[in-house]
Amino acid sequence: MYLGIDLGGTNIDAGLVSDQGLIVKKKSISTRPDRGSAAVIDDIINLSKSLSKSLEIQGLGIGIPGTVIKDKGMVDYACNINFNKVYLTKALNQYLNYPIYLDNDANCAALGEALYGAAKDFDTSMIVTIGTGIGGGVIINKKIYRGFNGAAGEIGHMVIKSGGLQCSCGRKGCFEKYASTTALENQAKNRLKNASKSLMLEMVAGQIDKIDGKIIFSAAEKGDEAAQDLIQQYIDYLAEGFANLINIFEPEIIVIGGGISRQGEHLLKPLKKETYKRIYSKHLSKTKIVTAALGSDAGIIGAANLWKG
Amino acid sequence: MYLGIDLGGTNIDAGLVSDQGLIVKKKSISTRPDRGSAAVIDDIINLSKSLSKSLEIQGLGIGIPGTVIKDKGMVDYACNINFNKVYLTKALNQYLNYPIYLDNDANCAALGEALYGAAKDFDTSMIVTIGTGIGGGVIINKKIYRGFNGAAGEIGHMVIKSGGLQCSCGRKGCFEKYASTTALENQAKNRLKNASKSLMLEMVAGQIDKIDGKIIFSAAEKGDEAAQDLIQQYIDYLAEGFANLINIFEPEIIVIGGGISRQGEHLLKPLKKETYKRIYSKHLSKTKIVTAALGSDAGIIGAANLWKG
Repeated sequence: MYLGIDLGGTNIDAGLVSDQGLIVKKKSISTRPDRGSAAVIDDIINLSKSLSKSLEIQGLGIGIPGTVIKDKGMVDYACNINFNKVYLTKALNQYLNYPIYLDNDANCAALGEALYGAAKDFDTSMIVTIGTGIGGGVIINKKIYRGFNGAAGEIGHMVIKSGGLQCSCGRKGCFEKYASTTALENQAKNRLKNASKSLMLEMVAGQIDKIDGKIIFSAAEKGDEAAQDLIQQYIDYLAEGFANLINIFEPEIIVIGGGISRQGEHLLKPLKKETYKRIYSKHLSKTKIVTAALGSDAGIIGAANLWKG
Repeated sequence: MYLGIDLGGTNIDAGLVSDQGLIVKKKSISTRPDRGSAAVIDDIINLSKSLSKSLEIQGLGIGIPGTVIKDKGMVDYACNINFNKVYLTKALNQYLNYPIYLDNDANCAALGEALYGAAKDFDTSMIVTIGTGIGGGVIINKKIYRGFNGAAGEIGHMVIKSGGLQCSCGRKGCFEKYASTTALENQAKNRLKNASKSLMLEMVAGQIDKIDGKIIFSAAEKGDEAAQDLIQQYIDYLAEGFANLINIFEPEIIVIGGGISRQGEHLLKPLKKETYKRIYSKHLSKTKIVTAALGSDAGIIGAANLWKG
């Protein structure tokens, strides 16, 4: 049995994962990163011990929301959890006598979906996680593709509109400034600022700050034209990025993660239409586009399988 | 010994390639694709026979300027050579009794540079061929990465300016509409249309249609401000695409092919500066950016090594 941990800024989610990729036992605690890395490391040790008890554990994998230097077992930088050059493997191995595997959290989610989720029948896949930003994980022959320095898959920072909106990474026009959930919400707020009347505004009782992706999709379904327009424009941006990824990578399947994936066919149907219109090799078999199957468990399951590569 | 052929719209370049990746004998003839595929196939057979003579040939690789369905040994579509669903392997094997390997020409050039050229010391590399358009080849662990349907690496058709210039692929704002040699030439022509005086115009005796990349770089070196501005703007676009590729792929090295690579440091120095400014993982070791080492031989050498994967 392997342990998998999804170490996030809000929660530490830990699971005992079977050889069939099922979480047989799960525990979550608050991360409270303000306590510093030592306290978080203590919690990881205690969670691991409490999940394993008398079981023989073959290894522990951890998904980190930041940059990992794998061969040093070090978290180079992860601002959400307040880790900066933390030698995590060494710290854990003082108390846990099994191999520790570290990787980026998006890579873990991609591996989870690739081995046991929506991409389990395909060798080459990508996960595109849409939320505050856009994260990515690339799987080639069922292994994580990391690039030579471990930093591949930063697809949110692919510029799709040169000279466009300012991104926190320093560039202008990044994919995530147009196609993250935050971007969709901002597009809605900008549009509604001067609107006197709108179903979206009614749904949040006029509190424009409460408008989120779910409200927008729901208003569109109910026939609200402004919401439908917003989603069409949003889908156009999303398709620009997806078509780019397909033209470059041609993965067999792209798996969409993040809260927006719960929109299912309301998202997939127009997205596939707009993406397939844009791809270069229209006459060849097409990359499948689906929503994630494992939800928030993908990170734990992927982390527990990091030993596979 | 293996034979390699670079089958282009203008010439069929064939070479006998040693195990050390050297072309020991080379022959070129005009393609004249208007004759139809059967005549071109005859020429390939005759070239192969004439280069091999009494030598024992282990295989022939051919780089095709179009889409290849490898498992069928078929050229699906290659408009430059007038091939449309041609079962090339079968046709050649009636006269040539050794294995035939087909692949896209950009992939062949990428493999040549990866095995014996500028990227020979690196496992993961990309070639970006800049000319009329922008082509790409991706090498992962010294093997060509083709995507599930063989069409990966169409980096020229990555949109960097959504809603921008119309591309022949149907999209608006493709990388090659801003950063190909043709794009640079168009940028210069647009700028000089209304100019009364310019070093660039002097260099072509007023014949604006004769302005090419070489003239623009040469005028910039001589201190012409308009040419320097043009190149700065062009480099900005090129860097947008390069930073995208690095953020997504993190190859150890990017090799620039095509005529513009002859500009050497005049191209590389500003391009590296602008690209490294834009990449996401600025604190990690950086992707090298270099010009091609094998020139137009890369295609032949790569084709002769297709049997390696």
